[in-house]
Amino acid sequence: MIVNGQAHRTIWQHPSKEATTCIIDQRQLPHEWIVAELTSVEAHARAIREMWVRGAPLIGATAAYGMYHACLEARGNKDPEAYIEQRAQQLLATRPTAVNLAWAVDRVLTSIKAVKDLSQKSATALATANSIADEDVEICRRIGEHGLPLLKKISESKKGGPINILTHCNAGWLACVDWGTATSPIYQAHEQGLDIHVWVDETRPRNQGARITAWELAQHGIPHTVIADNVGGHLMQHGMVDLVIVGTDRTTRSGDVANKIGTYLKALAAWDNQIPFYVALPSTTIDWHIRDGIKEIPIEQRDAEEVTHIRGLNVDRQEIISVRLTPASSSAANYGFDVTPAKYVTGLITERGVCAANEEGLAQLFPEKSKIGQASDS
Amino acid sequence: MIVNGQAHRTIWQHPSKEATTCIIDQRQLPHEWIVAELTSVEAHARAIREMWVRGAPLIGATAAYGMYHACLEARGNKDPEAYIEQRAQQLLATRPTAVNLAWAVDRVLTSIKAVKDLSQKSATALATANSIADEDVEICRRIGEHGLPLLKKISESKKGGPINILTHCNAGWLACVDWGTATSPIYQAHEQGLDIHVWVDETRPRNQGARITAWELAQHGIPHTVIADNVGGHLMQHGMVDLVIVGTDRTTRSGDVANKIGTYLKALAAWDNQIPFYVALPSTTIDWHIRDGIKEIPIEQRDAEEVTHIRGLNVDRQEIISVRLTPASSSAANYGFDVTPAKYVTGLITERGVCAANEEGLAQLFPEKSKIGQASDS
Repeated sequence: MIVNGQAHRTIWQHPSKEATTCIIDQRQLPHEWIVAELTSVEAHARAIREMWVRGAPLIGATAAYGMYHACLEARGNKDPEAYIEQRAQQLLATRPTAVNLAWAVDRVLTSIKAVKDLSQKSATALATANSIADEDVEICRRIGEHGLPLLKKISESKKGGPINILTHCNAGWLACVDWGTATSPIYQAHEQGLDIHVWVDETRPRNQGARITAWELAQHGIPHTVIADNVGGHLMQHGMVDLVIVGTDRTTRSGDVANKIGTYLKALAAWDNQIPFYVALPSTTIDWHIRDGIKEIPIEQRDAEEVTHIRGLNVDRQEIISVRLTPASSSAANYGFDVTPAKYVTGLITERGVCAANEEGLAQLFPEKSKIGQASDS
Repeated sequence: MIVNGQAHRTIWQHPSKEATTCIIDQRQLPHEWIVAELTSVEAHARAIREMWVRGAPLIGATAAYGMYHACLEARGNKDPEAYIEQRAQQLLATRPTAVNLAWAVDRVLTSIKAVKDLSQKSATALATANSIADEDVEICRRIGEHGLPLLKKISESKKGGPINILTHCNAGWLACVDWGTATSPIYQAHEQGLDIHVWVDETRPRNQGARITAWELAQHGIPHTVIADNVGGHLMQHGMVDLVIVGTDRTTRSGDVANKIGTYLKALAAWDNQIPFYVALPSTTIDWHIRDGIKEIPIEQRDAEEVTHIRGLNVDRQEIISVRLTPASSSAANYGFDVTPAKYVTGLITERGVCAANEEGLAQLFPEKSKIGQASDS
């Protein structure tokens, strides 16, 4: 998508420097735009661990390029196979719960297994990493393609008037390689000249909405307004939201949706005001083994300091600093995700099409996968 | 309530200095505890205007003491009556939408109308201001008394186990003169030795929960945990909330409740998880003239900077500063309140008792007032 007037992905190979992965250091957004160059496995691992990059697809792609560097670094090592395996473990340890990370590392490992020559291994690893990135772009593009008719329909019913979309957290291109998931229909609608306005939930405690979604929409020229997470219900009561689209970290085969904490509250408000609530997702995030999201999905508790403190720009000194928000003697709790029951989800927008958030809907789009669920039940 | 181990009100006359109103400068909470001394009408007006004090009852009491100073300052003025009237207007202009402010100023004006002698006027104004403060304490104490049995019942059903209460914003003693509204049953339960734990919504954008409610609970020694506004739904899904109690700025005669933005979302989550959702209020905040809160209560839009920036403590430098959270090119919207439809409110806790959130319930407790509503309809 567009940054400073130029088309960008979130991760790319440097056009002139050899073996150099370029990423956007997202920790500094929206206050600073910094492209970081990664030239070692450790640099890729640190970028994931310290959240220079975030979002499941982008983490996966970064780890895949990290594996390419593992092959490069294995040259001259006594036991290159063992070295590559160690570096794989190093990358896997950066965000242990990220399913995409393990998937991407495994995929590169599998692709190079049969290749004996080390420089061929490197070339294969790079090709696999490039494929992982390209496939993600294509999946997100298709999610947008399938979501677009929903927006067109609203635009028609409003006689071209603005489509007001509410989104939570960042399921944007900065979480992926390009397009994003929840934002992909938005970017495609914008390209087709539809009149779009996005309500951006700031998404406490880490403010991915206020920092990242707002920034990417601003850069791409899409009208948007940042709101506190408390506001969406009021807007919906007053007809100021036509559609909610969010992403998801994990969806059960019955359509329960685990996503950033607070998603459930917006789903309830959408339901109460008869506003469509859609979840955009690549099918890789569907967990076919589980059915009941509230009972079966463990919710990560994160550092309380994300609640008690916040980072922002000290405008006078032009420095990004952390300030404390709460009394020193008060503790805080920080649950990272919540589960929206399928009954509150109008539909799932996947790379294969839109379906109802239930077992039948998902089985129709993914017949080859739905058998996994049946096996889990037996 | 307790601060630094000592009992306090939010507003009091200095014990030794003449004509000196003491208040807590709440802008600096929770990072600094500052008692400010107000010795002129302008000082009282500024304290209200610049939100050194906030909360309808406390604003009213502060304005009443400001009127006492108007009488004092009128001495030596050519036209003391006109001077007092001008100062009343000055106080009224500080927060034009605050109903309690107008009520308190009017009440002092009425009390001094028949009094000719200026020093007697001052004495009468002071007595009226003291009454306003004392009456508020008594109303809040009674709200607590009526709410307490709800907590006792939960404690019994949990065999004394902790009562987990979720609250939003600050309807605590710092918004009143003492006790608070939503917090009054909590403080009284604590005094009776019940095991209480409070989930404190931080309440973006002004963070009255994280700053003020957390601070007053910490000072009083009540176990509590600050959470992002997004978290309550998840806690309720997992049985971690027994009861929600919030305050209100304005309640319709049918029981629709206007309160700090985000309250509605918590009410929906409580409803979805069959958790009791109570609203604590002095009956002065009931608007008997209106029925449909969503249609009839105008929602104030506040400065967008409350969303794009936040104040906190720079721990290294020990200074309270404001930092920017959003991209410079993104706009923000800041709706101050939302309306929770009566159907999601389990009950209203008033100074006369607890009633259902509907016309019949309110009419039973306030038969003399419910006629106002009937007149409005005809």
